[in-house]
Amino acid sequence: MKRRDFIQKAGVGSLAAGALIAPNIVNAATQFKWKMVTAWPKNFPGLGTNANLLAKMITEMSGGRIKVKVYGAKELLPAFEVFDAVSNGTAEMGHSGAYYWKGKAPAAQFFSAIPFGLTAQEMNAWLYYGGGMELWRELYKPFGIIPAATGNSGVQMAGWFNREIKTIDDLKGLKMRMPGLGGEVLRRAGGTTVNMPGGELFTSLQSGALDATEWVGPYNDLAFGFYKVAKYYYYPGWHEPGSTMEALINEKAFNALPKDLQEIVLTACKAANMDMISEYTARNNQALDTLINKHKVKVLPLPDDVLKTLKQLSAEVVLELAARDALSKKIYDSVTQFRTQVTRWGSISEQAFLKARSL
Amino acid sequence: MKRRDFIQKAGVGSLAAGALIAPNIVNAATQFKWKMVTAWPKNFPGLGTNANLLAKMITEMSGGRIKVKVYGAKELLPAFEVFDAVSNGTAEMGHSGAYYWKGKAPAAQFFSAIPFGLTAQEMNAWLYYGGGMELWRELYKPFGIIPAATGNSGVQMAGWFNREIKTIDDLKGLKMRMPGLGGEVLRRAGGTTVNMPGGELFTSLQSGALDATEWVGPYNDLAFGFYKVAKYYYYPGWHEPGSTMEALINEKAFNALPKDLQEIVLTACKAANMDMISEYTARNNQALDTLINKHKVKVLPLPDDVLKTLKQLSAEVVLELAARDALSKKIYDSVTQFRTQVTRWGSISEQAFLKARSL
Repeated sequence: MKRRDFIQKAGVGSLAAGALIAPNIVNAATQFKWKMVTAWPKNFPGLGTNANLLAKMITEMSGGRIKVKVYGAKELLPAFEVFDAVSNGTAEMGHSGAYYWKGKAPAAQFFSAIPFGLTAQEMNAWLYYGGGMELWRELYKPFGIIPAATGNSGVQMAGWFNREIKTIDDLKGLKMRMPGLGGEVLRRAGGTTVNMPGGELFTSLQSGALDATEWVGPYNDLAFGFYKVAKYYYYPGWHEPGSTMEALINEKAFNALPKDLQEIVLTACKAANMDMISEYTARNNQALDTLINKHKVKVLPLPDDVLKTLKQLSAEVVLELAARDALSKKIYDSVTQFRTQVTRWGSISEQAFLKARSL
Repeated sequence: MKRRDFIQKAGVGSLAAGALIAPNIVNAATQFKWKMVTAWPKNFPGLGTNANLLAKMITEMSGGRIKVKVYGAKELLPAFEVFDAVSNGTAEMGHSGAYYWKGKAPAAQFFSAIPFGLTAQEMNAWLYYGGGMELWRELYKPFGIIPAATGNSGVQMAGWFNREIKTIDDLKGLKMRMPGLGGEVLRRAGGTTVNMPGGELFTSLQSGALDATEWVGPYNDLAFGFYKVAKYYYYPGWHEPGSTMEALINEKAFNALPKDLQEIVLTACKAANMDMISEYTARNNQALDTLINKHKVKVLPLPDDVLKTLKQLSAEVVLELAARDALSKKIYDSVTQFRTQVTRWGSISEQAFLKARSL
């Protein structure tokens, strides 16, 4: 073959030709096909769309060298099998919330939402600059998973209620959907927690099988139509003040990537993390407007006395979690020390400013 | 040349060889050398280090196909020439704050900090999901610059004072360093504003040439040692509730990049944006602890009456800015409407939660 012919043939740029020519170009041309399994219904606003965005950013930044395909819950496997699937390599990536894995590693709950814990901004400060990320990696290491924060819902709402909450006694016998540590707190306050998929909440509220449910916030709750079947919409979401969403990355799949693609994957998670809290802040905003002005929803604050009791109970529940094992204790100590400091800084920065702005 | 020889020679992977072989591999191998000029001293904590991080992320994610070199203020050109340098292509990128460009486009100030305006989280929500980014692009378009948010300091402090502030009259005759719209508000309250580089503030406070100065917050202020020469540290930073840092990108240089590198540049900005607010939240936190416990600094709140008056004056100043031209008005309307909605959502989410946590 003449040189000119070879150049022209190679010009079509097939992978095989590239691979023959130059090792450094091989890397640039090698394609990785990744599956991202998620704990959310496909395209679910905020959560599912963030998974889509993350996959898109990785695919586009890599010029298609990693093609990430997103699977909604149940498409490839059920929501609660995401962790195992990433751990055993069935999928290279997952998109979920860490509190779903408390059965595998109780301390995982520290990396999603802690009652009366950190807000979105504080949580990210702890993760990226307070030692949180290193602890999270340590926790998932035995499972062959690298975690990354990839989104945050911001402060959630306390939920939709068909009973007015005036004292802590009004929580006694309340049948409410509330998962995780918040649910445990509610049980200690005398409530009964029921766990069921989001899709069943509307009819359960309507039939009286549930007296109350929390979900996320105005943006997601408006879409579910809870305002049609519940009387009161309570705030603030003491149980989930800044829920972190996680990207799970199979460690072997990650290590098989060249350095530039590794950087792309992790940086995309960080950018997606910025994106989700922005989306929720803007859209909750608009949805709240619709709920109040169009649907005339009664938005009420939980009384201070109720919040105080819930706060005491939360401290007990979180302390018990810390006592589960050595790593849980280490994570608890780190996040608790961080919270103490950030609360003081927050009181003279965000909190003081928000108060000044509303004068 | 025999085919084998050619392959071996091409195997060294020089750009020229790559360019001859395949157009799609040319793109992957083409190197771009970009200069990033900044408005900060080289490696300045938070601001300068964010510029370094941004450059590093772009360089690493692109596998070195874009090499971004960072220049501190005065290294290549003075801080206040960053905008022009990116506009005329002297540098491909810049890293600064938009309020420095009010002489070129008054409305630029809306994209950095507005007195009693948006917090970091709210600002990003407006930019990414409230139409802010599109308006910012429109504003810089005539200058051939593409802007991107690349960081946020969070709520700043009101500043260091050698005079106690009990009523609005205590601001009369006060000689204070306060740039931007905040400075204009202070002048209307009877103060005198002085603009000087950060490096001169310490001696000016010490000599009495200044009665007060604002800078950023505990993390940066501790490093400057202001606690040695000023009596009181006031909060909250009403004048800069969430100052956005900007990346400036020369439009032609951006358009010359292949699609994947364009995505890398913009996504890196978004990830850097998440990084800076996390850094400030964590480090302000630690620095405040040092200021209070080690240096026994008196941290005081501005009285509500003072804040109320400053808020009224701020509304006047911002309204006058909106009247400057049609685009300023359009941006003002967008951000004002967003602020109204987000304030209501914030009052039942972040604000209500922070209050509940401190009960």
